[in-house]
Amino acid sequence: MSPEVDGRYAVLGAGSWGTTFAKVLADAGTDVCLWARRKEVADEIENDHLNSEYLPDVMLPARLRATHDADAALDGVTTVVLAIPAQKLRAHLEDWRDQLPRDATVVSLAKGVEMGTLKRMSEVVADAGAVDPGRIAVVSGPNLAGEIAAEQPTATVVACSDHDRAVAVQHACSTGYFKPYTNVDVIGCELGGACKNVIALACGMAAGMGYGDNTTASLITRGLAEISRLTVALGGQALTLAGLAGMGDLVATCSSPLSRNRRFGASLGKGLSVAEAEEANHGQVAEGVKSCDAIGELARRHDVDTPIVEAVSRVCAGQVSARDVGDELINRERKPE
Amino acid sequence: MSPEVDGRYAVLGAGSWGTTFAKVLADAGTDVCLWARRKEVADEIENDHLNSEYLPDVMLPARLRATHDADAALDGVTTVVLAIPAQKLRAHLEDWRDQLPRDATVVSLAKGVEMGTLKRMSEVVADAGAVDPGRIAVVSGPNLAGEIAAEQPTATVVACSDHDRAVAVQHACSTGYFKPYTNVDVIGCELGGACKNVIALACGMAAGMGYGDNTTASLITRGLAEISRLTVALGGQALTLAGLAGMGDLVATCSSPLSRNRRFGASLGKGLSVAEAEEANHGQVAEGVKSCDAIGELARRHDVDTPIVEAVSRVCAGQVSARDVGDELINRERKPE
Repeated sequence: MSPEVDGRYAVLGAGSWGTTFAKVLADAGTDVCLWARRKEVADEIENDHLNSEYLPDVMLPARLRATHDADAALDGVTTVVLAIPAQKLRAHLEDWRDQLPRDATVVSLAKGVEMGTLKRMSEVVADAGAVDPGRIAVVSGPNLAGEIAAEQPTATVVACSDHDRAVAVQHACSTGYFKPYTNVDVIGCELGGACKNVIALACGMAAGMGYGDNTTASLITRGLAEISRLTVALGGQALTLAGLAGMGDLVATCSSPLSRNRRFGASLGKGLSVAEAEEANHGQVAEGVKSCDAIGELARRHDVDTPIVEAVSRVCAGQVSARDVGDELINRERKPE
Repeated sequence: MSPEVDGRYAVLGAGSWGTTFAKVLADAGTDVCLWARRKEVADEIENDHLNSEYLPDVMLPARLRATHDADAALDGVTTVVLAIPAQKLRAHLEDWRDQLPRDATVVSLAKGVEMGTLKRMSEVVADAGAVDPGRIAVVSGPNLAGEIAAEQPTATVVACSDHDRAVAVQHACSTGYFKPYTNVDVIGCELGGACKNVIALACGMAAGMGYGDNTTASLITRGLAEISRLTVALGGQALTLAGLAGMGDLVATCSSPLSRNRRFGASLGKGLSVAEAEEANHGQVAEGVKSCDAIGELARRHDVDTPIVEAVSRVCAGQVSARDVGDELINRERKPE
């Protein structure tokens, strides 16, 4: 255990990413308790060191504690990690607001933009959790949970406007297989993480239509250009998007068959409707389907041109088929790059 | 046929990329003759519209002519396309120098840096072919030949310091499935194309060692940062590297199982020596193995830090194993990004 890792962590949410991040913290020697909404999940983690629903093949560290009692998880912590899906974060925070310790660092793992309000996750945390923005950190990077749980070497970015808090979280989650870098650009990291889901939907659609690696690589390249323009317009740094939380996350998500958004896009590319794709993907709607409208609206409000996001939005709204926009996205007018 | 496509093209070299590019030109309505070194290859293309050795499943357009007589191919052309492997380009150009028409545009498709001289391909063309740099264009982008030959939608970049010549080549190779963009940054396009082979070797090594998509995405991200720094030091534009000829080509090459460099790297990652990997890859040494030293040397001369290129060079020189540098590349010191 590193001497710098003092403090106590709660990870709220025991899906695959929350459970994996709790494992990373425990492996780094950090004192951590994982909260699961369902008692049986918490009991299985606490007693059998297993989360059979989300990470069936992974033995969790014995030192990782779990509970389904949020009060108990939050009692006396220095850092709260929120591993809640983007569109459900606000409702949970409203429940937990009074238990969040006053000086705790609050770390968001969620990737998305809130529907309706168009807020980034750190803005939702500040708003619904009554947390000062200087205390909010985000973690984002090329982080397919299953690979990290299998202890594959992975790099990530911990961003917080308060550099000291970013460094504290960095130390708390540094292990032999998980390497966090720090950044102060919360906006860039969050937009990289949210927008990549939408570009991954587009890449999935192209793959579903039978297009190959040349097409995917072009979509990823133009997609990153879109996200970067939007980030700069919203006050973030283009350089962040050129790094692990931008390009790195985008490339991992768009290339991996493990990515939910890519898989969902592939269903749409094969001609399924959103409802049919949801059924084909075990009843789950990919986050990009929910965030794409909010991201497109943010872009319009800031006069940023985002043709890929727009095209994905129209497919997700059922206005056009993936094939219709595929031709449009791929056969653009000939001009200087 | 577009009215702007006048002029006559020779494509010199009938490997998979040369044959594919000749097909693209013919499909765009351009008058084109393909030169093959071996008579039987030229005859098969001319008579059977097939290059069974390099593109076994592709029916070539009937209007694509072929010859093994370089004088005949070059007679009266306005544009010469060089589809010769990087390390063989100089020797061929010395043979052809006197037949290259005085005002012809000379297009390089080769991706690499010449061993020994450390020259980019356009510099080799200028030097060995006695061609004015303003007449030299390069084509580079996410262009896996097999996918283009199968008419998968693909974008690319045509770069020439003389914008009008870039536009002429753009028109000559624009088809429904192949979309060229123009650029005046020859240096950036060439370095993107040459260096991506080395990064693809690194990604192949990681895959061969069993690492997953998180690791690959991190290597691609850091690799692009290296290439961009080197490009800027050598007088090219960082923006070019953020586009199709940089990031696009890199992502396609590093993700695709079709990429020779990635495949060769995977053999090294499994513990094979360069000689054994050569044998496992049908006697072919991937271009990145040849270019990595020259690129590393260019970087050192310009004081640019390129840890991935350096690591690949040491493996290719047999100084260390892929596993040794794998750990070094992946477990870097923890710091701000």
